[in-house]
Amino acid sequence: MFNSSSERLVAVLREWIATAPAGSQLPSTRTLVANHEVSPVTVQKALRILTGQGIIESRPGIGTFVRSHPVARAHDHAWQTAALGVVQRPLPELASAQRATPNDVISLQSGYPDRDLLPERLVRSAFSRVARSDAVLQRTPAAGLPDLQSWFASELGAITAPGLSAPAASDVVVLPGSQSGLGSIFRSLVGAGKPMLIESPTYWGAILAAAQVGVQLVPVPAGPHGPDTGQLDRAFEQTGARAFYAHPNFANPSGAQWSPEVSQRVLEILKNRGAFLVEDDWAKDLGINAESSPMAARDDSGHVVYLRSLTKSVSPAVRVAGVIARGPARERILADNQAQSMYVSGALQSVALDVVTQPGWRTHLRSVRQQLATRRDLVLDALAQHLPEAHVEQVPLGGLNLWARLPDATNLVQLVRDCEMRGVAISAGDSWFPAEPTGRFLRLNFAGPNPGAFNQGVEIIGQVLRA
Amino acid sequence: MFNSSSERLVAVLREWIATAPAGSQLPSTRTLVANHEVSPVTVQKALRILTGQGIIESRPGIGTFVRSHPVARAHDHAWQTAALGVVQRPLPELASAQRATPNDVISLQSGYPDRDLLPERLVRSAFSRVARSDAVLQRTPAAGLPDLQSWFASELGAITAPGLSAPAASDVVVLPGSQSGLGSIFRSLVGAGKPMLIESPTYWGAILAAAQVGVQLVPVPAGPHGPDTGQLDRAFEQTGARAFYAHPNFANPSGAQWSPEVSQRVLEILKNRGAFLVEDDWAKDLGINAESSPMAARDDSGHVVYLRSLTKSVSPAVRVAGVIARGPARERILADNQAQSMYVSGALQSVALDVVTQPGWRTHLRSVRQQLATRRDLVLDALAQHLPEAHVEQVPLGGLNLWARLPDATNLVQLVRDCEMRGVAISAGDSWFPAEPTGRFLRLNFAGPNPGAFNQGVEIIGQVLRA
Repeated sequence: MFNSSSERLVAVLREWIATAPAGSQLPSTRTLVANHEVSPVTVQKALRILTGQGIIESRPGIGTFVRSHPVARAHDHAWQTAALGVVQRPLPELASAQRATPNDVISLQSGYPDRDLLPERLVRSAFSRVARSDAVLQRTPAAGLPDLQSWFASELGAITAPGLSAPAASDVVVLPGSQSGLGSIFRSLVGAGKPMLIESPTYWGAILAAAQVGVQLVPVPAGPHGPDTGQLDRAFEQTGARAFYAHPNFANPSGAQWSPEVSQRVLEILKNRGAFLVEDDWAKDLGINAESSPMAARDDSGHVVYLRSLTKSVSPAVRVAGVIARGPARERILADNQAQSMYVSGALQSVALDVVTQPGWRTHLRSVRQQLATRRDLVLDALAQHLPEAHVEQVPLGGLNLWARLPDATNLVQLVRDCEMRGVAISAGDSWFPAEPTGRFLRLNFAGPNPGAFNQGVEIIGQVLRA
Repeated sequence: MFNSSSERLVAVLREWIATAPAGSQLPSTRTLVANHEVSPVTVQKALRILTGQGIIESRPGIGTFVRSHPVARAHDHAWQTAALGVVQRPLPELASAQRATPNDVISLQSGYPDRDLLPERLVRSAFSRVARSDAVLQRTPAAGLPDLQSWFASELGAITAPGLSAPAASDVVVLPGSQSGLGSIFRSLVGAGKPMLIESPTYWGAILAAAQVGVQLVPVPAGPHGPDTGQLDRAFEQTGARAFYAHPNFANPSGAQWSPEVSQRVLEILKNRGAFLVEDDWAKDLGINAESSPMAARDDSGHVVYLRSLTKSVSPAVRVAGVIARGPARERILADNQAQSMYVSGALQSVALDVVTQPGWRTHLRSVRQQLATRRDLVLDALAQHLPEAHVEQVPLGGLNLWARLPDATNLVQLVRDCEMRGVAISAGDSWFPAEPTGRFLRLNFAGPNPGAFNQGVEIIGQVLRA
């Protein structure tokens, strides 16, 4: 328990002091030495520690005394209100996807894949291997573990269009999760008070990161084939924005994938406007009927800043993401990321690299694809059967979510609350809109635990909606 | 290598396309089926992938063609200059402490403890245990693993002054390292454009985090017994600042520890001014001749926001820190930290908790204390012997650094460069000043590898200085 004899003495004296009236004189050093069988040095050290803690005070030539101390009381932190002032940049409330749900609840709201969808065996063996390596004791370079940088670059390089130069390992910055990457990218490319275009609806975490940075969001409506490119071009022109945040593949929440025509047109607009696309390829490993086809694979002039996380496909405990950017943009992102987090745990980077380079990784991804297809279709069938009022415009080709529109008269707040009372957790779609929602939507996540209960869950939603 | 037969076909076709002139027609589906012994579904899938990648295009009723593609060329990212504009908030350059040094260099500049000073056995066994636990597969609550929150609270509670209420687990927010904690705290308590008082000299990472947030730093000079409290009070009055960042124990870089009188006076000033102290207790586990005696242990009215990192004492690969704050301040810090990083890897939190709750942890800390004392004294002796020009005002009672003043005529840039040429890595003190340096200082870190070479390193510094 105790570090040393002086610490032991400190503990004994603290007990005595706790019951002594303020101003009581402590026994002399000589007495303490005798009573506690310690050396005078130990006594001096203990008294120094207690003095440092503000518990006793020494009056030279007189003795050592218990300081007057206030009676324990209810805390009053009201003074902080004046010191803190009003919130400069209000942050949106956390979406329900971030809340934990009890085990006995049917969850259609999780933001993270269920354990069945994770490469458990690979993750455990990677942690065991890394435990024996030097990665658990070392600091890594700020831009990341070189081998992991190479891996991120090679993944994108393997699908880069012919004639374009593939990204280099040095174009990669490894991040402690994509959330901090979004912050760094928005600060680096846009900055406080400046406009940024953003698909609507889109990932609430991106809306949150933008709010934290103080970016002015300009929503651009997106449908099953991608954003409305006419509106996109007009928004660039009218706002002077130089960046556009989007999910070209398996958009969260809608599951949409940009058509080749939209992709081509967006690239033209970016070049024409001298603007960045912040491509959040969050579901790269979560394709169902299609592969992710990143915009970054069609650009080598630095217009696309590409963000890819491993948190959802490797494990929620392995907070590792990579951003691929070229030119000055990459330098700014790296500098910002360093100021924000210095570097990413080398242990987590090594675990991530170990998992994605095992032969079992590809096998795992194939199995996930099958499972996601089954889970998605379970919910789709349940919707058709029990909730015909819900309209799903886009059957997602990848990702973890269904985006279902409900009748305009639906009271979403009440629906979510009543479903929760009946043991079904769902997310109102409002959190996925950067501005006012354009309709009443539910985001139904099909990656949560216990897919066998999805049908019953949707049935309950239907009952509650009609009640 | 390949996920499926369609991926294999994609790879084959990409090779063919890479050498084909733009506009070439691809073989028909029937031909591809026959030549590659695959199903028509596979061919269609491969063609869809290539279309998605922008490599081919289909002209309905005619056939599929290789798209025109630009010749690989040198990248021109000049357009980004206009899109990015000038840097809104210039970040200071990274201090030399963050640079890696080659193995054959005598390093007196590291910012992180050498491997000999880390609890290697504890860290490895913690990672092995955690590999078998559920922590490697789960997401944790945003405020941290409850047991780790409790541990952080109990560490401070054990030394809280009698009569004051000890912090609760719910006052703790677990952070992915103290750097991101500094950002969250500065954003939450101060905000962009607002003033914050800061000890001078102080940790360059805090100066960096403040620059990123856009905080206006107001330096308060600090000596061997702490800050000049007269100047501190005046700076609060003149600037209207509501927060003060400081290291009351084992200050980085100077090693100073606030005297009980200074501590008491600072608390009075904080109460009087309705202000926060951001106490960075970075060397809590690195006391040498004294224990850390945190200001937070003498305050329960929410004036002290207490930051403690485990990265330096557990392992640089275990990026885990905790902040203890009470009242609305804690809510703001938690919300900001969530917007910045969502949550901290549960695997790293579990490893940290495992290490600090092993019986071997206390033994390890005692051994570190001995080693640091020896290392510090080695450098002090070497300074007396080889570099009498250096003045060390404060023999550090804890921490990892000596702060040595050199004659005012010293050309620090040249000294550092010339020492580097002679194989000795040292840090010019300028990075530790929020504003202009007040003298020519070296920060000599005594926690780097190979302490046996410290004497020779200091001898070389002396030779270079006198050359």
